[in-house]
Amino acid sequence: MKKFINDPADVVAQSLAGLAAAHPELRVDTEEQYIVRADAPRAGKVGLVSGGGSGHEPLHGGFVGPGMLDAAVPGEVFTSPVPDQILAATKAVDGGAGVVHVVKNYTGDVMNFQLAAELATDEGISVETVLVDDDVAVEDSTWTAGRRGTGATLLVEKIAGARAEEGGKLAEVAAIGREVNAASGSFAYALTSGTTPAAGRPGFELPADEIEAGVGIHGEPGRRREKLRPAKELVRSALDAILDAKTFTGPVLLLVNGLGGTPLIELYLIYGEASAYLEERGVAIARQLVGNYVTSLDMAGMSLTLCQATDEMIRLWDAPVRTPGLRWGA
Amino acid sequence: MKKFINDPADVVAQSLAGLAAAHPELRVDTEEQYIVRADAPRAGKVGLVSGGGSGHEPLHGGFVGPGMLDAAVPGEVFTSPVPDQILAATKAVDGGAGVVHVVKNYTGDVMNFQLAAELATDEGISVETVLVDDDVAVEDSTWTAGRRGTGATLLVEKIAGARAEEGGKLAEVAAIGREVNAASGSFAYALTSGTTPAAGRPGFELPADEIEAGVGIHGEPGRRREKLRPAKELVRSALDAILDAKTFTGPVLLLVNGLGGTPLIELYLIYGEASAYLEERGVAIARQLVGNYVTSLDMAGMSLTLCQATDEMIRLWDAPVRTPGLRWGA
Repeated sequence: MKKFINDPADVVAQSLAGLAAAHPELRVDTEEQYIVRADAPRAGKVGLVSGGGSGHEPLHGGFVGPGMLDAAVPGEVFTSPVPDQILAATKAVDGGAGVVHVVKNYTGDVMNFQLAAELATDEGISVETVLVDDDVAVEDSTWTAGRRGTGATLLVEKIAGARAEEGGKLAEVAAIGREVNAASGSFAYALTSGTTPAAGRPGFELPADEIEAGVGIHGEPGRRREKLRPAKELVRSALDAILDAKTFTGPVLLLVNGLGGTPLIELYLIYGEASAYLEERGVAIARQLVGNYVTSLDMAGMSLTLCQATDEMIRLWDAPVRTPGLRWGA
Repeated sequence: MKKFINDPADVVAQSLAGLAAAHPELRVDTEEQYIVRADAPRAGKVGLVSGGGSGHEPLHGGFVGPGMLDAAVPGEVFTSPVPDQILAATKAVDGGAGVVHVVKNYTGDVMNFQLAAELATDEGISVETVLVDDDVAVEDSTWTAGRRGTGATLLVEKIAGARAEEGGKLAEVAAIGREVNAASGSFAYALTSGTTPAAGRPGFELPADEIEAGVGIHGEPGRRREKLRPAKELVRSALDAILDAKTFTGPVLLLVNGLGGTPLIELYLIYGEASAYLEERGVAIARQLVGNYVTSLDMAGMSLTLCQATDEMIRLWDAPVRTPGLRWGA
């Protein structure tokens, strides 16, 4: 394994220390292991907390800041954060207006966020949970009952984050988050596996000419192994899978997302193919984002996410955001 | 070779088409192959043009926009753009106040930008050239006489771009660009080679436990092959090399840059080590940036860049910028 690390056991803690040093506008609680806006809690503002295993950066820690998350709770690599961590972060951002948990649909995450929500409720904090399950590739998977949460997590965090920032109430912030998730579908391809520091070798092996279609962000198996095909064909197949699974009639948000090891030159080529095919299929693109945002360590791969966007979602998407990983208008 | 492409011969053109589709605020001239702000030329504003081989994205095309470049001229992958391309871009951004070329120190780039500058001068456009040669690893290298231009290119483009945006004159914009370059030093490590679409295989081979110390952004050899060491040691060696080569007394800009295939979890760990060691060495960090900015396709690797920053440089660094690859305050 070749990585820029010291001891595999210290990767998450040391990476968080670096994030804290690089971004003084954030505060990292190294004991409880969470990342929070330095100005938290903000009185009267609904807090937005997300988290999950590390290895998906900038998700979630890189999305903490004005207009997006109030706190992020990273577990070890590909490992759910524990309830105490989530509870501590929830308390740290509670400004009296309640807290929304954004939870990707993995069994461990769901269970631990639920426990933390119950503990927080016992302490008098109102918690609403938004479950993200946008991946249309498979119904159940390793670590997941139901569909997996992937690229749409970014859309949920951005849009619900904007709603919270402008003073939305607990139920409103949760409602728009759920609406975004329900309106979203994703599909991913892996060219290679990522390598976790603890395992030290790729999570799965692919022959030199094969790819995993419908892969999850932890390298979970997808629909099938297949031969590598031109990008144009892969993009069409992925969009077909999404368009088959959900109805997209109006303008969409389109996220072309790299899984960590895919360079921008390829992601923009993919965007070109995706926008051309959506035009052919009569689906207009309202907004778009291209980059490595919801990743799987150093996996070479990409995912496409479509979200059928209402005017309200587009307004909230355009609202200012100032985080390490996503920033505009501020 | 596993990449999200169609035909290796079409990668650059198709990626540019995707960039244009994703960013309507930019215009791509597909015939002459350059990227330009949609509002160019702007009367009375000094134009800023950079370019070089493709494969370093977001450099340069992703840095076109208000506060940074007016145009970028991408060659084929790792291949210099031709003089006609550069001339066309220079004319497209000429608002009557002259044009600054930011040129990384590679023989082909230097020669072709110089030819283009002469042709532009013949057409009545004043051109100043800022040569970037910040890589302290080696004196001469494949494709380079003198030091190579790498990470500092981003700093030059950001700071000179801000000076041009606020109405700086031709000589002033060029002067601050040269000042930034002179004040900068960089050093890079490769864990793996990148793979060009045309070659279809890695540019060089490294044993499973070896790295290239002082590598260039096209995979050019550095100082030596060495055994992989903990990140802490690599960071210290890289910073020692930079601090030995140039004098850094005051606050610095620190760029922790991924070479394309290195995930953020590692880059932030590197930032933590770098900031701790600079503190030990008595070098204060004024501003910092962490991410994959000056890349080498899918190379797993990283570079560190220090720039001894004047108050003026910091002011210009903080100025608003709105490009696909770098954005704040706007």
